[in-house]
Amino acid sequence: MEGPELWRELGQQLRADAVRASAKAGSGHPTSSMSAADLAAVLLAAHFRYDFDEPRSPGNDRLVFSKGHASPLVYGLFRAAGVLSEEEFGTYRQFGSRLEGHPTPVLPWVDVATGSLGQGLPIGVGMALAGKRLDRLPFRTWVICGDSEMAEGSMWEAAEHAAFYELDNLTAIVDVNRLGQRGETMHGWDLASYSERFRAFGWHAIEIDGHDVAQIHAAYEEAERTTGKPTVVVAKTLKGKGYSKIEDQGGWHGKASSAEDAEEALAELGGIRNHVVDVPKPEHGEPHRFEPEAVEWPRYDVGSKVATRKAYGDALAALGGERGDVVVLDGEVSNSTYSEAFGDAHPERFFQMYIAEQQMIAAAVGMQVLGWKPHASTFAAFLSRAYDFVRMAAISRATLKLCGSHAGVSIGEDGPSQMALEDLAEFRAVHGSTVLYPCDGNQTARLVHAMADLEGISYLRTTRADTPVVYGPDEEFPVGGSKTLREGDDVAIVAAGITVHEALQAAETLAGEGVSARVIDLYSVKPVDGDTLRALRTPIVTVEDHWPEGGLGDAVLGALADADDRQRVVKLAVSGLPRSGKPAELLAEAGIDAEHIAAAALRLVQEASAVS
Amino acid sequence: MEGPELWRELGQQLRADAVRASAKAGSGHPTSSMSAADLAAVLLAAHFRYDFDEPRSPGNDRLVFSKGHASPLVYGLFRAAGVLSEEEFGTYRQFGSRLEGHPTPVLPWVDVATGSLGQGLPIGVGMALAGKRLDRLPFRTWVICGDSEMAEGSMWEAAEHAAFYELDNLTAIVDVNRLGQRGETMHGWDLASYSERFRAFGWHAIEIDGHDVAQIHAAYEEAERTTGKPTVVVAKTLKGKGYSKIEDQGGWHGKASSAEDAEEALAELGGIRNHVVDVPKPEHGEPHRFEPEAVEWPRYDVGSKVATRKAYGDALAALGGERGDVVVLDGEVSNSTYSEAFGDAHPERFFQMYIAEQQMIAAAVGMQVLGWKPHASTFAAFLSRAYDFVRMAAISRATLKLCGSHAGVSIGEDGPSQMALEDLAEFRAVHGSTVLYPCDGNQTARLVHAMADLEGISYLRTTRADTPVVYGPDEEFPVGGSKTLREGDDVAIVAAGITVHEALQAAETLAGEGVSARVIDLYSVKPVDGDTLRALRTPIVTVEDHWPEGGLGDAVLGALADADDRQRVVKLAVSGLPRSGKPAELLAEAGIDAEHIAAAALRLVQEASAVS
Repeated sequence: MEGPELWRELGQQLRADAVRASAKAGSGHPTSSMSAADLAAVLLAAHFRYDFDEPRSPGNDRLVFSKGHASPLVYGLFRAAGVLSEEEFGTYRQFGSRLEGHPTPVLPWVDVATGSLGQGLPIGVGMALAGKRLDRLPFRTWVICGDSEMAEGSMWEAAEHAAFYELDNLTAIVDVNRLGQRGETMHGWDLASYSERFRAFGWHAIEIDGHDVAQIHAAYEEAERTTGKPTVVVAKTLKGKGYSKIEDQGGWHGKASSAEDAEEALAELGGIRNHVVDVPKPEHGEPHRFEPEAVEWPRYDVGSKVATRKAYGDALAALGGERGDVVVLDGEVSNSTYSEAFGDAHPERFFQMYIAEQQMIAAAVGMQVLGWKPHASTFAAFLSRAYDFVRMAAISRATLKLCGSHAGVSIGEDGPSQMALEDLAEFRAVHGSTVLYPCDGNQTARLVHAMADLEGISYLRTTRADTPVVYGPDEEFPVGGSKTLREGDDVAIVAAGITVHEALQAAETLAGEGVSARVIDLYSVKPVDGDTLRALRTPIVTVEDHWPEGGLGDAVLGALADADDRQRVVKLAVSGLPRSGKPAELLAEAGIDAEHIAAAALRLVQEASAVS
Repeated sequence: MEGPELWRELGQQLRADAVRASAKAGSGHPTSSMSAADLAAVLLAAHFRYDFDEPRSPGNDRLVFSKGHASPLVYGLFRAAGVLSEEEFGTYRQFGSRLEGHPTPVLPWVDVATGSLGQGLPIGVGMALAGKRLDRLPFRTWVICGDSEMAEGSMWEAAEHAAFYELDNLTAIVDVNRLGQRGETMHGWDLASYSERFRAFGWHAIEIDGHDVAQIHAAYEEAERTTGKPTVVVAKTLKGKGYSKIEDQGGWHGKASSAEDAEEALAELGGIRNHVVDVPKPEHGEPHRFEPEAVEWPRYDVGSKVATRKAYGDALAALGGERGDVVVLDGEVSNSTYSEAFGDAHPERFFQMYIAEQQMIAAAVGMQVLGWKPHASTFAAFLSRAYDFVRMAAISRATLKLCGSHAGVSIGEDGPSQMALEDLAEFRAVHGSTVLYPCDGNQTARLVHAMADLEGISYLRTTRADTPVVYGPDEEFPVGGSKTLREGDDVAIVAAGITVHEALQAAETLAGEGVSARVIDLYSVKPVDGDTLRALRTPIVTVEDHWPEGGLGDAVLGALADADDRQRVVKLAVSGLPRSGKPAELLAEAGIDAEHIAAAALRLVQEASAVS
């Protein structure tokens, strides 16, 4: 069997598989799978080029299920490709199975986790951008989208960037089954509402009947032929297609059929099929590689002043020379984050994502699938725009290097909208993350170097203002370590970033009053140097340019929680809503400047001596 | 002076003011203000209806500067309206001044903080929606947008919703000055690229020369006349307009002029002017109010089972009856969060925002400006999509009530993409927030009731599964309190939500082994009941269905940090990346079920007795 006959059969097979997999699991989204089954069947049988034995082969097409809840369809496709046994197919949604409720990369043919809607297409943009500009290979990225998720603005960020970068190697397929989770979508079956929007954004758009395999095939061919712009196939479909009881009916989203209904559905669908499609492998192709070059890493003189954001840019440019796989994405602020230094040095690997932080992170996720090492930066406050994308990136087991600049009240006059005061909390609460917060230029450069080899999500927090260089350029800063910048026996001040300098000044003041204060630079906020903290035998003051919740202070408390000798900890942080002003005024108002640190430390020492 | 002559003069006045204010401050965005000055001048002088003495007057037009960095223009407008003295105008960006770097509601004529781009238009949608559907008054919402921020997907969420809800009382003005922060925007002066996108989304779009006051006036009149759809005025402008040295030049974003340049600019602009516009007040109008009605609050029998998400929906419906100012927004999951119960009972106050969480939060912010009390809910994991909007809402001094359902691994089969494991960290790190996490139906209902009177951002975390009702329906749960569900002298288990039930079971197990375990239900995660925690004289086990960072355990550690008697704390939380499975399997795998709690508690007790 081949051609349209096979495609129709395969569509029925995928629908039957969706029904029985979810019925067995007792949960899942069969109806959302059934609507897209023909779209997926024709893709697998006649257009997709993929070596299932070598999922990381650079020539492979990429397939992203932006509508990740259609996971029974994803797994049904893998069964139809002959790589998933009937036995494993039966483990859908069971504990320990690779067939999770929404697809994740525990399966080798799944590149990224989906299930938070509106993320697959922006990630696909990153893959296609990598294909065109980095790998320079002719693979195609296919993204199957739901109609409901077109309400997410991130989909239109993707539409914008795909057109801007002329990604004719990207095809979006929108499964317009009319029904969302709890009722009709905004646009129902008004296919033009989608295609006109895409055309206005610069795409080629084709409207089809999503259950007519000939139309589907023709649309995919048209997409493959279209040059200079991405193509969207807007397909009218029926949710629950193929089982009359639920077809095009509301109230069946995310509901598995009962055993009885499943039997009835299978009868209507013509029973279980076992077609296996011989998916053609792509032509071999060697991806483009950028040659490393001899570089000089930035070195700053102790006692001079440089902003850590500036050192980040300098270091990034050096890293880019040292390693050809480093790529950088900007959210239209590269002259503030200083990632422009990389852009100047390595323009072919620098991607302007404009003011679209979600797309910036998603593109980075897409690029790292192809083996690139993306660094993305913007103001730390604006990374909060993409928090759901970072959360999902961790579930995708993605390796991303993020940098947020302009952290804290120390930015000064621009005011609270530009001050990140939650970013440490935000990034600590990401699975497997690393959170680094340097206080000087040399430390920043070394941490950028260290980040290059980290797996998972790593985050570097930089400061707007110029700060004194306190470390020599050859000092080492292991991730998970800390630096004791000053010894002291009466009290320990634990700081990071901008507050390290305030802490050093406070220690000076305290020395004048006969108090010996230790100063610890906790540049690695996660993982934290628990051994050093637990070894302290004095009261502790923590100080951070951040809200009191979830940041450096909480990291310290976490390390001490079940220590045998739990020292008293006073946490200094920003608690009032800051306003505009000079950095020094704002640090003072927030109670995190040298004067407040010294006062808090002194009080602790006095109380401790009163007790003993 | 009046009409076009005045408008042109006023435009020059606003430009001169922008130059001199930022020059004096030494920072700010004069060029971004100068491009939009004529657009703002004609608005103030000929279209805006506003009682500056009564900024909360319900008939007032609303004005949102989505491009909040143009703050010199905002303050210049207030000076031109006669409500800001020359003296105060000179305090721009100074510590303690109301004229912050980006506008905030410390000024009575600023409704919401802007400065994180792409938020003003979605907030304007909320205001216009309130005007049309809630207040039912003919005021108009004007939003001045930058061209760079059109790259934010949230702007297109706003475009989508404004058209869907036929908001002809909303006018967006896009200041197309061609230049972003570090170079040209994607579309430069291609006005059609914007107007065609807006038209495809269902708007009326007008392209004009943004420095031709007659064209501006005509466009605003056309917007006022247009019915059934919102209007966008796409205006071609020059960044830095009016000062030849910087006009339409790159490299001048966010840069104040030197004193010398400012003098030159003022000379070119014709000097300082002091025109004061008599802004007409709106006609009086009484906003529509929804009558309260007699309601029965939900009551659940102790020992029965109900999901806290279900109780949230039931309570919300009751609250809506009791209070006519409560409104509810949904992100297309109201049958999962159960906010559909409110929608059924009060359809006129229920707003479907589809799968657009950013727009959902922004609309809530807009509605609360008009005095409504918005409650917004979706899966807790998907609230992370709108984190930047929540961050900014706190800076807007907004009062929002948020609910996230399906928290934690206990949701089961759907897998990690749907499991919020960072939401407690996320919402604790919001300025002035309240974070509540009920474990049973009656507690949920009482906390929904309590939230109604809270100011600022409050967040309620609900659970997917049915859980036993452990409290009577008349029990009180003060915010900042806790409940000791079981007394015990050997160890204290501190839990919330789903883990309360695991903790109670663990205490039973421990009792069988001769260990007396106290169980504390820490339903108020922020503010936290520090007195109760500090009074504990036994080791503590905290247990949460959340990552280890920033959640319940950290809240407990924070309360104990500087206590005189710091008990040892073992924190149980989810540390591995969860997969799909049955809730019980996943709680066990994460080490937060009754068995693991009992084991941790037993170990602590044994170690404590070994020491003593």
